[in-house]
Amino acid sequence: MYLWHNLRAVNLSDLGPYPAAAGYDLARRLDAHDPLGEYRQRFVRPDPDLIYLDGNSLGMLPKDAPAILREVVDHQWGRRLIRSWEEGWWDLQLKLGDLLAPLLGANRGEVMISDSTSVNLYKLAMAAVAAQPGRSRIITDDLNFPTDVYILGGVAKATGTDLEVLPSDGVHGPVDELTRAIDSDTALVALSHTTFKSGYTYDLGHITRIAHDNGALVLWDCSHSVGAIPIDFEAAGVDLAVGCTYKYLNGGPGSPAFLYVRHDLQARLDNPISAWWGHADPFSFTLEFEPVTGIRRFHTGTMPVLSLAALEPGIRVANEAGIEQIRKKSIQMGEFFVQQCQTHLEPLGFRLLSPRDPQRRGSHVALGHDQASHLTKELINRAKVLVDFRTPDSIRFGFSALYNSFVEIHTAVQRTVRVARSLIPS
Amino acid sequence: MYLWHNLRAVNLSDLGPYPAAAGYDLARRLDAHDPLGEYRQRFVRPDPDLIYLDGNSLGMLPKDAPAILREVVDHQWGRRLIRSWEEGWWDLQLKLGDLLAPLLGANRGEVMISDSTSVNLYKLAMAAVAAQPGRSRIITDDLNFPTDVYILGGVAKATGTDLEVLPSDGVHGPVDELTRAIDSDTALVALSHTTFKSGYTYDLGHITRIAHDNGALVLWDCSHSVGAIPIDFEAAGVDLAVGCTYKYLNGGPGSPAFLYVRHDLQARLDNPISAWWGHADPFSFTLEFEPVTGIRRFHTGTMPVLSLAALEPGIRVANEAGIEQIRKKSIQMGEFFVQQCQTHLEPLGFRLLSPRDPQRRGSHVALGHDQASHLTKELINRAKVLVDFRTPDSIRFGFSALYNSFVEIHTAVQRTVRVARSLIPS
Repeated sequence: MYLWHNLRAVNLSDLGPYPAAAGYDLARRLDAHDPLGEYRQRFVRPDPDLIYLDGNSLGMLPKDAPAILREVVDHQWGRRLIRSWEEGWWDLQLKLGDLLAPLLGANRGEVMISDSTSVNLYKLAMAAVAAQPGRSRIITDDLNFPTDVYILGGVAKATGTDLEVLPSDGVHGPVDELTRAIDSDTALVALSHTTFKSGYTYDLGHITRIAHDNGALVLWDCSHSVGAIPIDFEAAGVDLAVGCTYKYLNGGPGSPAFLYVRHDLQARLDNPISAWWGHADPFSFTLEFEPVTGIRRFHTGTMPVLSLAALEPGIRVANEAGIEQIRKKSIQMGEFFVQQCQTHLEPLGFRLLSPRDPQRRGSHVALGHDQASHLTKELINRAKVLVDFRTPDSIRFGFSALYNSFVEIHTAVQRTVRVARSLIPS
Repeated sequence: MYLWHNLRAVNLSDLGPYPAAAGYDLARRLDAHDPLGEYRQRFVRPDPDLIYLDGNSLGMLPKDAPAILREVVDHQWGRRLIRSWEEGWWDLQLKLGDLLAPLLGANRGEVMISDSTSVNLYKLAMAAVAAQPGRSRIITDDLNFPTDVYILGGVAKATGTDLEVLPSDGVHGPVDELTRAIDSDTALVALSHTTFKSGYTYDLGHITRIAHDNGALVLWDCSHSVGAIPIDFEAAGVDLAVGCTYKYLNGGPGSPAFLYVRHDLQARLDNPISAWWGHADPFSFTLEFEPVTGIRRFHTGTMPVLSLAALEPGIRVANEAGIEQIRKKSIQMGEFFVQQCQTHLEPLGFRLLSPRDPQRRGSHVALGHDQASHLTKELINRAKVLVDFRTPDSIRFGFSALYNSFVEIHTAVQRTVRVARSLIPS
């Protein structure tokens, strides 16, 4: 029997909206003047009462995706069969990479979609360390997604280097510690651009410059920023990057990840998992591996075509809406939410676990609460507010500029108020 | 201008059947008594004139697959959203692995579906070599899929071992050479069970025994045998295996691959690309990696759920038909085809490039011809016989017991006769 079963049941027969609660009129005005408001119609909305604030984990279904899948399954697989490889599948990962490139500030031929973020991170980190002989350290921080730390640990083990995990205050990136730690012995600096828990967002250009000043390479994981924050790899001089496509890019569950290798680095780096997809002449089937020129050399095996194809509408809709507009609304949503929290939730024991500065924050906000785990379950199961819990005490509220509204945020806060009050035994 | 444009056009307005040609009555009788005949109806047939003999590259679309995808996309992604991870996605790779296990002679908990064959091969080969300290060689043969050789080369480089590629006669596995080469310095023997070009099929148990007698581990790539040939990993004592699921398992383009690790080896081997999916407590998000018990420890990142889900009907239909029955028909088809070739195609310059012994042959037959590349294009584009070309001079005819018929094979041979005759200038 869990604790919350003993507590007063939440009465949420009235799911809102809540015009009497402070902030409602502002939310209405912001929605009325939202230039991205029309994009809400581009996504499937499962239930008018559901407020989906978990686009930072899995983005919603673009309405165009099912038709693309039908075409790929019924026509391309079902009717064209093996001929579809020549008719479009063989280059799909490159075409989608080029479609994604503007959202990364990358050039054509610098981005490819393949495998998972984890596999891509492994490949690029192995390649980077191998390209830095005589340098013995990989540097990351403790805000990085744990998987990234595990993978970098594996790379360190395989390459005989050391992994240094710099400590943070739990919310903000340890910029001073990074500045001190990165030196002429650093092979690679690998960080999350926007961190998964607090949402802290690094200044890409600043950290990249520090790395380059010391001759280190940088590898950014942009899983929590791509599609939400303008990224300019070219201006920042970024060497390498990876990121997943099923969060703010709405690519579908487990859609393949991207990898980015700056053009002039491509010939210098060796893919540790070289396969025929990255061969200069793949259908020669020679036993000697000779890498192709370009981003394709970082390819490994055959891609999951259905999951890859379903990714296209999500990338297209983000390009169409424009990443500057997306970021502008995302900051407005975050600020509105933080202000609502100050008014309505801080008195109930919630505290901000994300940076207060919107420039250093991604598109989700983490709130701490002693009963965070219970509250999350209640929010999901009774209040129809889909958020997620991150141990030990954090609830993440993710905002997607493409399909969330300000009234939704206002309503979600009010439902949270009611759920939190119900946790106080009567 | 290519050579064949100067040649007589193939007149295939009459696409058959060809009752006057020797073998037709036998084909009809074999079809009439085919216990798997009903399974043809379980697959989408795009065009009544098309003869699809490339199931060894990409299997046909099971009729049940589109409905599964609609459920996964419209309901699970579109309506349940993030909740679908708890409601079925999180274990999908293990449930599908258990569903596949009987086709591999594996036990529950020994098989997982994830990533590509190439990535899985890399992970298991790296793990195997690391578990064999003091042994300095990886052994394979030149019939192996070139990608496998490239990947093993990468593993050798990363682990400081040597890769030895044993030469064959181009058709048959170099069993004597393997027997001599495998010794107490061998860390790993990695081979294709059924080889991609000639279709030579190793005796799993025999080679595995030789490896084990010398303390070496074995890693089989079963891409060209799974779903076509009975496999008994348990009886053969196989250590490790990988294989793709989009050939005879009809899992869809680029559907994720399987990996197999024998139960008692799982705790001894370390996944080189360890990530939170293989963590003992993934949602603790601790920075220290602690592997979970069982096959899941070989998992890496988030899977492409759409491609994964589409794989289920293909595995189910193979289980339902029964692998012994599938192999029996596959051998009958191969033998019928070889006999037809002797009668009709050898006089036109074709020669068998596969083993003559059906027990040592997989479910495809390779024919050599001086004009193989041209012939393949003509067969595909004019004669509606979908086969594939493998450099320098080989045409692969793949037979799927689940959806090919003997009359189709007879017709395909007759169309090949007509195409080949048209290559002789008039």
